[in-house]
Amino acid sequence: MQTDLNSDMGESFGAWRMGDDLALLEHVSSANIACGFHAGDPATMAQTVRAAVERGVAIGAHPSLPDLQGFGRRAMQVSEAEAYGFTVYQVGALQGFAAAAGTRLRHVKAHGALYNMAARDAKLSGALCRAVRDVDASLVVFALAGSIMVEVARDMGLRVAEEVFADRSYQDDGSLTPRSHPQAMVTDLDQSIAQVQRMLREGCVRSLNGRDVPIKPDTICLHGDQPGAATFARALRTRLQADGVTIRAPS
Amino acid sequence: MQTDLNSDMGESFGAWRMGDDLALLEHVSSANIACGFHAGDPATMAQTVRAAVERGVAIGAHPSLPDLQGFGRRAMQVSEAEAYGFTVYQVGALQGFAAAAGTRLRHVKAHGALYNMAARDAKLSGALCRAVRDVDASLVVFALAGSIMVEVARDMGLRVAEEVFADRSYQDDGSLTPRSHPQAMVTDLDQSIAQVQRMLREGCVRSLNGRDVPIKPDTICLHGDQPGAATFARALRTRLQADGVTIRAPS
Amino acid sequence: MQTDLNSDMGESFGAWRMGDDLALLEHVSSANIACGFHAGDPATMAQTVRAAVERGVAIGAHPSLPDLQGFGRRAMQVSEAEAYGFTVYQVGALQGFAAAAGTRLRHVKAHGALYNMAARDAKLSGALCRAVRDVDASLVVFALAGSIMVEVARDMGLRVAEEVFADRSYQDDGSLTPRSHPQAMVTDLDQSIAQVQRMLREGCVRSLNGRDVPIKPDTICLHGDQPGAATFARALRTRLQADGVTIRAPS
Amino acid sequence: MQTDLNSDMGESFGAWRMGDDLALLEHVSSANIACGFHAGDPATMAQTVRAAVERGVAIGAHPSLPDLQGFGRRAMQVSEAEAYGFTVYQVGALQGFAAAAGTRLRHVKAHGALYNMAARDAKLSGALCRAVRDVDASLVVFALAGSIMVEVARDMGLRVAEEVFADRSYQDDGSLTPRSHPQAMVTDLDQSIAQVQRMLREGCVRSLNGRDVPIKPDTICLHGDQPGAATFARALRTRLQADGVTIRAPS
Repeated sequence: MQTDLNSDMGESFGAWRMGDDLALLEHVSSANIACGFHAGDPATMAQTVRAAVERGVAIGAHPSLPDLQGFGRRAMQVSEAEAYGFTVYQVGALQGFAAAAGTRLRHVKAHGALYNMAARDAKLSGALCRAVRDVDASLVVFALAGSIMVEVARDMGLRVAEEVFADRSYQDDGSLTPRSHPQAMVTDLDQSIAQVQRMLREGCVRSLNGRDVPIKPDTICLHGDQPGAATFARALRTRLQADGVTIRAPS
Repeated sequence: MQTDLNSDMGESFGAWRMGDDLALLEHVSSANIACGFHAGDPATMAQTVRAAVERGVAIGAHPSLPDLQGFGRRAMQVSEAEAYGFTVYQVGALQGFAAAAGTRLRHVKAHGALYNMAARDAKLSGALCRAVRDVDASLVVFALAGSIMVEVARDMGLRVAEEVFADRSYQDDGSLTPRSHPQAMVTDLDQSIAQVQRMLREGCVRSLNGRDVPIKPDTICLHGDQPGAATFARALRTRLQADGVTIRAPS
Repeated sequence: MQTDLNSDMGESFGAWRMGDDLALLEHVSSANIACGFHAGDPATMAQTVRAAVERGVAIGAHPSLPDLQGFGRRAMQVSEAEAYGFTVYQVGALQGFAAAAGTRLRHVKAHGALYNMAARDAKLSGALCRAVRDVDASLVVFALAGSIMVEVARDMGLRVAEEVFADRSYQDDGSLTPRSHPQAMVTDLDQSIAQVQRMLREGCVRSLNGRDVPIKPDTICLHGDQPGAATFARALRTRLQADGVTIRAPS
Repeated sequence: MQTDLNSDMGESFGAWRMGDDLALLEHVSSANIACGFHAGDPATMAQTVRAAVERGVAIGAHPSLPDLQGFGRRAMQVSEAEAYGFTVYQVGALQGFAAAAGTRLRHVKAHGALYNMAARDAKLSGALCRAVRDVDASLVVFALAGSIMVEVARDMGLRVAEEVFADRSYQDDGSLTPRSHPQAMVTDLDQSIAQVQRMLREGCVRSLNGRDVPIKPDTICLHGDQPGAATFARALRTRLQADGVTIRAPS
């Protein structure tokens, strides 16, 4: 058995700090690096790429809607041409830093509202996937497990990693329970790890309603901006490795 | 004899238009494309790259200080690490669009205040040149003819195109007459063309004080944002070609 | 009979120009001035306020979603607290320039996507109207004639000017025909003027389906960013004045 | 004896936090509130104004150069018209939030690079002071004690509060020791308080060279973004009050 642990990184901006990237880099196998539209000024991007490379963590672009003030979390009505352009631009910018560090990008994962919108919208997914394909068709697309974007990327011939969440509960249709719901988050460490273990061993997740829903855990998202993030990451990694799971970036 | 005609392009932003890129693309051999920091949203970058590629015009990045409101024309005190980051970021972003259009960048020319600051400042030049080298060491650096940046780039082993201006007058030390001076601009078309012809044939330019100053016209800058820009470009190109000068991008 | 002619102004930004404000200022009685979020840098705001004041045109704030790249035309999911803050901020900023010019604001009209969203959304309308009330309760709120925002503003005790369009066709429910519809725009000058005349004389507009829909034309929007804008403004003003209509800002 | 304790506040932006405003508000008499150009989104401005008003702390605008990425700390070459516009805009925007909270601004203090540039540049000081005068001539201008800006503001008939620093060492000419100097900062709490006490009692400060330099401590700047900021503020306030110094905003 094998999976990938990914986390959003490089989300500081200028004088403002966010997250404890160096602690998380000890535990993840893939780093999704902010590209300037929701966070991540150029100096932060350069540092984050170097820090990941030094620790052997695979790097990917984490493109967003252009919304620093809203941290890319506000849905925005954008055309396919705009979404395509945003993605090419941000992936390209991060490729610049990767080249400067003597390495290459391995994946692309959309951020925040763009990620959520693309998971439900085939046209938007198409725009993002065409951008990835046109810039570098060897990049792996990270997309919400079971979502429209998984199909769109696959139909375009791209490699896809289906992404699951350790700390979120699921609905009967395989979607995430909306954050507004009181049981949206799985806050118990053991329960959270058990959810991931079951995904890996049995290929399914128990929904809030108690139904077993099939799911494919190619990569597991760890949230870096929450207290205890590094502790959780260490615990999950240790437990999975004890189970004989290999942790490495999708290839 | 051979030289290159370059012009800044893709300087629209969102709903705002600037310049007549399509007209100028008929006459230049190199397009310096804005990369989002002073102008050039992603959709504009995509369109400009495609338009240049279709007409066989070589494309280069035109990175700027981060200053949309000031169009990159305001000097700003930035560290070497910041300048390096700005350049890697913007060159990378444009490389994304070049890759998407099935082509590659050929050169990098700093914009506005960044260009002027780098021409006089070896440390800043060093930061820009390291960025170019680290992203793609085959890119040609466009720099003010005779400036510090020419030396810095050459010392770093980069290819350099020394840039001259048809419509600007020169000082005894080979620098441009500041725009505040009443005779900064060469407004007469014939005089402007004659200045370029003399640069090409004799390798020198007559300064405002009447001194002949050596100069190396590897590439000639045409300003696209002025009335009559396309007319001037056509006249200059026609006259140079009649003189037997080959117009093509530096290689 | 009396009405107001309003137009969006001050929508240049830095080096980029938009619209012919000086020409339009000869014909309108109210100027909606961009406040920096979709257009309008501080220097442009200062100039536009002064130009309007010199011509005796009433000035109002034209607040937008924070989206320079999209010119405030992209719908964005914002909270009530965000919308409230955007409005207070932008109205306050323009009040600064009004005070500096020795005058006061008279009205507030939301821009682009914010205007359209508020016309349909009572919560968003409420946030905008609370912002207006809290900053200066004497300001007139311009809102789409017949829309939810008219009711919300009135319920809050604010003065409202219902806004109509000379160059847009209407639906049976009094809403504007979406721009995607082939007959969304009224392009014929005479038909456009006749539509306004009927609104003023009979208080109704003929919908695309041929139904007469009641409408209250407190203020008429003239688009300044289209070719022929000043010509149209002059023709409309002349014709209305010949009909005995007084053109002046709501008081 | 009487003086004022001021601190920069509201310097969070969107998802990013900075400083512990609530702790510092217990100790200062004046709050300099960021206005969106270097920090301070509208929601943060609204919260900060309300928090200061609830605690009876006087509020002032803290306008900056437009540079979120550089936190307003990078010097930028701006025209007088630009600087005037930046100041009117930001002061106006904060006035909006003050009006919404049922209060008024009391002062204006430029931020970062703008503050430092204006302290040395009479033209830039003039632009800032004209902006303050034109928006509200009753506002108190906070300016570096002994600087050109103090004179410029006074010549314009504005009220001025000369600002001193508890944690910075001084040069023989009354200027601050540049931060690059190893002894720029006064890190010892007792020495720092003693420096302020001497300013208040004797109207002078001992320079690094050991000279006594006259200084007028109308308002004392406390840095809020450093560890121990609230502890230092409490200690200074307690000691000054024990000395019989009244702490209150300039009137």
